[in-house]
Amino acid sequence: MPPEEIARETTTKGRLMAEQTPSEGLQLRSLVRADQVLEVFLETVAVPEPGPGEVLVRVEAAPVNPSDLGLLFGGADLAAAVVTGSGERPVLTAPIPDAAMRALAGRTGTPMPAGNEGAGTVVAAGPSAEAQALLGKTVAVAGGAMYSQYRLVNAVACLQLPDGTPAIDGASSFVNPMTVLGMVETMRMEGHTALVHTAAASNLGQMLNRLCVEEQIPLVNIVRKQADEELLRSAGATYVCNSAAPEFAGDLTAALRETGATLAFDAIGGGKLASQILTCMEAAASAASAGYSRYGSAVHKQVYIYGSLDRGPTELARSYGMAWGVGGWLLTPFLQKIGPAEVARLRSRVAAGLATTFASSYAGQMSLAGALQPAAVAQYGRMATGSKYVIVPTLR
Amino acid sequence: MPPEEIARETTTKGRLMAEQTPSEGLQLRSLVRADQVLEVFLETVAVPEPGPGEVLVRVEAAPVNPSDLGLLFGGADLAAAVVTGSGERPVLTAPIPDAAMRALAGRTGTPMPAGNEGAGTVVAAGPSAEAQALLGKTVAVAGGAMYSQYRLVNAVACLQLPDGTPAIDGASSFVNPMTVLGMVETMRMEGHTALVHTAAASNLGQMLNRLCVEEQIPLVNIVRKQADEELLRSAGATYVCNSAAPEFAGDLTAALRETGATLAFDAIGGGKLASQILTCMEAAASAASAGYSRYGSAVHKQVYIYGSLDRGPTELARSYGMAWGVGGWLLTPFLQKIGPAEVARLRSRVAAGLATTFASSYAGQMSLAGALQPAAVAQYGRMATGSKYVIVPTLR
Repeated sequence: MPPEEIARETTTKGRLMAEQTPSEGLQLRSLVRADQVLEVFLETVAVPEPGPGEVLVRVEAAPVNPSDLGLLFGGADLAAAVVTGSGERPVLTAPIPDAAMRALAGRTGTPMPAGNEGAGTVVAAGPSAEAQALLGKTVAVAGGAMYSQYRLVNAVACLQLPDGTPAIDGASSFVNPMTVLGMVETMRMEGHTALVHTAAASNLGQMLNRLCVEEQIPLVNIVRKQADEELLRSAGATYVCNSAAPEFAGDLTAALRETGATLAFDAIGGGKLASQILTCMEAAASAASAGYSRYGSAVHKQVYIYGSLDRGPTELARSYGMAWGVGGWLLTPFLQKIGPAEVARLRSRVAAGLATTFASSYAGQMSLAGALQPAAVAQYGRMATGSKYVIVPTLR
Repeated sequence: MPPEEIARETTTKGRLMAEQTPSEGLQLRSLVRADQVLEVFLETVAVPEPGPGEVLVRVEAAPVNPSDLGLLFGGADLAAAVVTGSGERPVLTAPIPDAAMRALAGRTGTPMPAGNEGAGTVVAAGPSAEAQALLGKTVAVAGGAMYSQYRLVNAVACLQLPDGTPAIDGASSFVNPMTVLGMVETMRMEGHTALVHTAAASNLGQMLNRLCVEEQIPLVNIVRKQADEELLRSAGATYVCNSAAPEFAGDLTAALRETGATLAFDAIGGGKLASQILTCMEAAASAASAGYSRYGSAVHKQVYIYGSLDRGPTELARSYGMAWGVGGWLLTPFLQKIGPAEVARLRSRVAAGLATTFASSYAGQMSLAGALQPAAVAQYGRMATGSKYVIVPTLR
């Protein structure tokens, strides 16, 4: 095709799509008010025109990840949530306890959009070649503010989904897949050869299990329920330990001896589990070495806390010598550390595996307004296995 | 001097010194018995002949560091300690609680010598040039088993003290000086520019303060008593925060903002102090940056626990975002990491500063037998500021 024809066609297509796009759309906002009340509501915002290099995405699916809940609800007491407003424009309010309020000083008074990731159709594009190439395509985006009907993003930030992939299948293509890949990369970068994972039957945990099975990485899964144990075993997991079982410490130590795992990723955070894991790692390391050292084994044992299902304090018994570390782990700084080329490599791996390794499943779908109903909040706010929900902003 | 004369002289000297050396000496031993009783006693051991490259040191001073107490007493209940045996050969026994016993399985039934470091005179030497060169010299040694009248060590492991240095002045030339140098080196290696230190009025803390004053490294000292605060200020400390004062959090945050310290070394371990330090570091980092991030600041905040003055659990509130770490820090692996050339450089720095930067002071001296008296144990076992004691095995 000669250059003029390409230009004409993209212009026509751009105009065509733009004509279908309304001038305003809804966006979910979370506001921490100075009177210690959380307010979550839908704002009408102008739908912007794409600049050069930008595309406008009609968001068709955006999951509610545990990592979204903090920004959405800011630690408010959701059991006391109340909804006012109309069915189409509900307003959820809930009181914020004193302790939570202190951590929210930086955002008080500023309504914040939410939704880390999602997918949808590119309905308008700026004049650059990258942007035009995406017109009409289904893309996944991890740009924040995805709980919106329309979202303007840079074309280079879009992950084009394989042709025929429904938006909902690509909605969770960033947070969970990149996190499980990040865990495995961290393991390699820090010289470990096996992994431990807690809350291991979560969507993310099942994904990590599939990845480890595929890559033959020994993985010790820790769950709290018999049903979760069976779910993981039926998905090919070799090591599943139930922290609610009386024989947990012995089971975990045995699994750690067999796998040699000295790195754990912990989604729970609070309580004694991180410390128990370190204790069992030390028991496994001591059993493998001879002699006594009052400082414990020389084997470095690490737990990274990447979630906070239990918001209470982490209690470390320090009964595992001196070669140990506990710390926070977050996807964004990890991706900054590995750099854009490596990030691009991991993202194309995700795109290729969206229907298999990196597939997500949802317990239910809801509209933007539906996401503000207390019954829905009670469901997706639980962060329990099998309770992952997706917001579909095109639903009424 | 021609070679034969050197050989003759060293042989004569070697024989001369060897003749003054008895064939047996006392060594302190700590035994965890299977019946859950700790037994600390003096064993008569043969004084060995130095092999090639070895020297025999008559130990004249060996400090009781906090790091020695674990091996010495293994968590036994010293309040219930009893002494039997003669005045010259006392035997201290004390019951070991169940919880402590579990951690001691690796040493049960094996009497263990103790004493990480000390100093004394080389009274016999093997035929190698390095060994012969030390004959008659005062040396510092960090070889373990220093609570002995005589100790055979490798000549290369000895730090020769500057001529005229009394042994007692070199007794603490390894653990504390290398630890404070290790803290400063760790700070540099991990990209921090200032330090926080707890239990900051300890012997080690005062040494760190002198080193930081000399090197112009901003140091935030945390103490628990007004007297300790004054002690450090009179030694030139700029930042001293009292954790028992009601304004502690505000004081500490202000000091962290001024110094930019994002690395702390904590001697206490148990309780909430490590978490409080991270909270204040985060407050200082947030105050310095604009905008709100639900994951907290991107500034990495680290606490290394190197002691355990409080043996209770460490409680982490995790109210400081995701860029944080807490872990154990131990001198030996640190020295292995930096390698022998760097260790030698640090040790000669210590030798040059034994009377100044790296000087230690003691609350009292005791013989080997005296160290087993309950009143003495109660004193040096307290690990309180100003209660550092030294064992002088040449005392009767």
